[in-house]
Amino acid sequence: MDRVLSYIESHRDQAIEGLKDFLRIPSVSTHPHHKADVSRCAGFLADELRRIGMKRVNIAPTAGHPIVYAEWLEAPGQPTVLMYGHYDVQPAEPFELWESEPFEPTIRGDNLFARGSTDDKGQVWLHVKALEAHLAQHGRLPVNVKMLIEGEEEVASAHLETYIETHKEELEADVVMVSDTTMYDYERPSIGYGLRGLVYMEIQIEGPNKDLHSGGYGGSVANPLNVISDIIAQLIDQNGRITIPGFYDHIVPLTDTERTAFAALPFSEATFAERLGVAELKGEEGYSTLERIWARPTLDVNGLMGGFTGEGSKTVIASKGMAKISMRLVPDQDPEIIAETFEAYVRTLAPPSVKINFLRHGTGKPILTPRNHPAVKAADYAISQGFGIAPVYIREGGSIPVVATFQERLGLPTVLMGFGLPDCDAHAPNEKFNLQNFFRGIKSAAWFYAEYGKNNT
Amino acid sequence: MDRVLSYIESHRDQAIEGLKDFLRIPSVSTHPHHKADVSRCAGFLADELRRIGMKRVNIAPTAGHPIVYAEWLEAPGQPTVLMYGHYDVQPAEPFELWESEPFEPTIRGDNLFARGSTDDKGQVWLHVKALEAHLAQHGRLPVNVKMLIEGEEEVASAHLETYIETHKEELEADVVMVSDTTMYDYERPSIGYGLRGLVYMEIQIEGPNKDLHSGGYGGSVANPLNVISDIIAQLIDQNGRITIPGFYDHIVPLTDTERTAFAALPFSEATFAERLGVAELKGEEGYSTLERIWARPTLDVNGLMGGFTGEGSKTVIASKGMAKISMRLVPDQDPEIIAETFEAYVRTLAPPSVKINFLRHGTGKPILTPRNHPAVKAADYAISQGFGIAPVYIREGGSIPVVATFQERLGLPTVLMGFGLPDCDAHAPNEKFNLQNFFRGIKSAAWFYAEYGKNNT
Repeated sequence: MDRVLSYIESHRDQAIEGLKDFLRIPSVSTHPHHKADVSRCAGFLADELRRIGMKRVNIAPTAGHPIVYAEWLEAPGQPTVLMYGHYDVQPAEPFELWESEPFEPTIRGDNLFARGSTDDKGQVWLHVKALEAHLAQHGRLPVNVKMLIEGEEEVASAHLETYIETHKEELEADVVMVSDTTMYDYERPSIGYGLRGLVYMEIQIEGPNKDLHSGGYGGSVANPLNVISDIIAQLIDQNGRITIPGFYDHIVPLTDTERTAFAALPFSEATFAERLGVAELKGEEGYSTLERIWARPTLDVNGLMGGFTGEGSKTVIASKGMAKISMRLVPDQDPEIIAETFEAYVRTLAPPSVKINFLRHGTGKPILTPRNHPAVKAADYAISQGFGIAPVYIREGGSIPVVATFQERLGLPTVLMGFGLPDCDAHAPNEKFNLQNFFRGIKSAAWFYAEYGKNNT
Repeated sequence: MDRVLSYIESHRDQAIEGLKDFLRIPSVSTHPHHKADVSRCAGFLADELRRIGMKRVNIAPTAGHPIVYAEWLEAPGQPTVLMYGHYDVQPAEPFELWESEPFEPTIRGDNLFARGSTDDKGQVWLHVKALEAHLAQHGRLPVNVKMLIEGEEEVASAHLETYIETHKEELEADVVMVSDTTMYDYERPSIGYGLRGLVYMEIQIEGPNKDLHSGGYGGSVANPLNVISDIIAQLIDQNGRITIPGFYDHIVPLTDTERTAFAALPFSEATFAERLGVAELKGEEGYSTLERIWARPTLDVNGLMGGFTGEGSKTVIASKGMAKISMRLVPDQDPEIIAETFEAYVRTLAPPSVKINFLRHGTGKPILTPRNHPAVKAADYAISQGFGIAPVYIREGGSIPVVATFQERLGLPTVLMGFGLPDCDAHAPNEKFNLQNFFRGIKSAAWFYAEYGKNNT
């Protein structure tokens, strides 16, 4: 490992410049007009994987954006790591809130600012650099490695499941390694063992067949925008509990051990609130903020639109209104059942005078990972080496639906070794990646591949 | 009148062509980028008024859009009519729903389609044509006439009150004549004696100081879009009653006479619902649809906006949300008091973790006009002549705040002689004016000026 670590040290500039080039490509998977950019980004990544010495590098087309696959399987008797990540990014809107261009990576202080810097290009790149260091110094890797880097994570991994289903043999492995999460805080690297799931719905409400003058018609007909507000308001009760029938039925309760461990983590509700600029925090009654984020389900409106939204006023009753609503789920809530129940329940909340149309923008199952897997132990050791401190074990509020897919389709557990920070603004303007953690991440990844090989020989 | 009527008949084409030129100017008062168009429209109207023989035609600048004034005062001993109208129009958005260009007037069947065709350019134009006929045939008018045509009616007549306040002598008159309303139906011309008032508010809700990832933060903080929905939902109860404290305190109840008269008018709730494409009508419990529209207050969301509103999904908790909410008022609700109470009440509905900012986009007082004024009788006779049928007396759901201003500032009652039709789509795409009613309107206006002169000598 000495030679590997010294290679990493002496190639810091190259690592950053390469990442910047990767970030410059606006691979926004949700916007159709960025389709060519997403494709170009896949090509860029594949070229780099070939350059560092990965084998069978392939850009696999899908009905959506392509999947980049690579492997190095010349360590007989050693276990196989399936490294998963994504090269697509969230939209950068609203552009005007960025201090520097979202797709022109800019270093300010210790941070590299760009859309995708943390989520997930930066974290994919640190694995690429760790593998490069091993290959450059030893001509080989300590374990067998398969890489599966998709271009649709931000659009609910629309075609990944099909790919996995049709490439089961290619993807055979012992464990999945994912770096797409955050550390507990700047000083506490962490291993995540739980992820929330997701159901993302869009409700379209249609009332009168055309926009109406609010003077000539106001009072006579259900207003779609009032209706949509009424529906949303009824989805959560006074105690912050979601009112969808049966919503909480299959939840695995937090154990006393977990609640004690979470409570032992340094967490200041006051600081958290202050950082968000809010006078108080708010959520489900009976749970701490960490519990609410990590281990309790939620319902949030992600978008609202209807009627006249320009400057000034227009006295109109809009014909249509729209709300995007997502629910975060915890084990063992089933996204498909929740989505069905949501639709049926919302229909009961609307008056007969409106038509409702539902769109499902994505679902993902919640997950809990076993903590006694050799790869988890290797990750624990690797992080201890890379950061000089032992990791804490945490759950995550976000969703990585593919982790559930790996469990279900390939029978593989996943190790979540994330190097983002809680204030990295992954889906917001001014997304950033701490550069010190980027290099600690490269080293931790390099240690992981070495240690997992050693542990398993 | 024979010569006047024959002039009107022989100048039909010119009347339509002139109106089309008037409608081609996109005088959208609410959009700053149309400022020059609004100004050009004022000039076009002033030129026409000079051409037909009106005196002291003047384009009076204001802090907003200009006011066009004209007069003809050479009928000593005769009463003076202050004819009021507006040459500005509503925005035409959404453009894609128009079957022909909103500012390229197009005749299909009996209708002329264009933004402003009914509201209010077409109805201003019919008075201009009536006055032209009198002046062209007799070189004089039967009464004294002052015209006050503003360019800010669709932005709450922002500067008209100041103008009226500072031009009290110029505007001295016996009655105000307004054609900016609709007939009861195609066969029933009407005289309006009541108008609803208006309070138009915008609520801006600000929560966290930046957009947040709904995975990493969902459940921990009040979501501004959920909050805005909760607020809106609490403004109206299960019975369609507005919950603002004291909201109904000063309302003059509908009289039995009025309720009987309204009930006697031909009105099919089924047809009304079918025309709007809704399965059922909905409004305040205990009132008929006509009563709800004409004589009961309402609260409608006119615009909603926040978070991610593009195609697809973004798992974001938005920092901000916005709702435009207007209330229609009835006598004797006071818009200023309602606006104050609304703000205070909404503040009680929001959690302390959000900041609320209010914008007032306009207020207008509700009004009831006396029915025994000589000008009302003249209008009754004029309509009977112009349409061959006596008018019905109705109230209007819409607001013309300036009518209240005329009452308060100048002590003048207003006659509402409107020639639009209920399905003219005044504030919606495909606004239209029935051309047969346009010509009946010209004749009715010509009769009104003649009859009002005769009645008052």
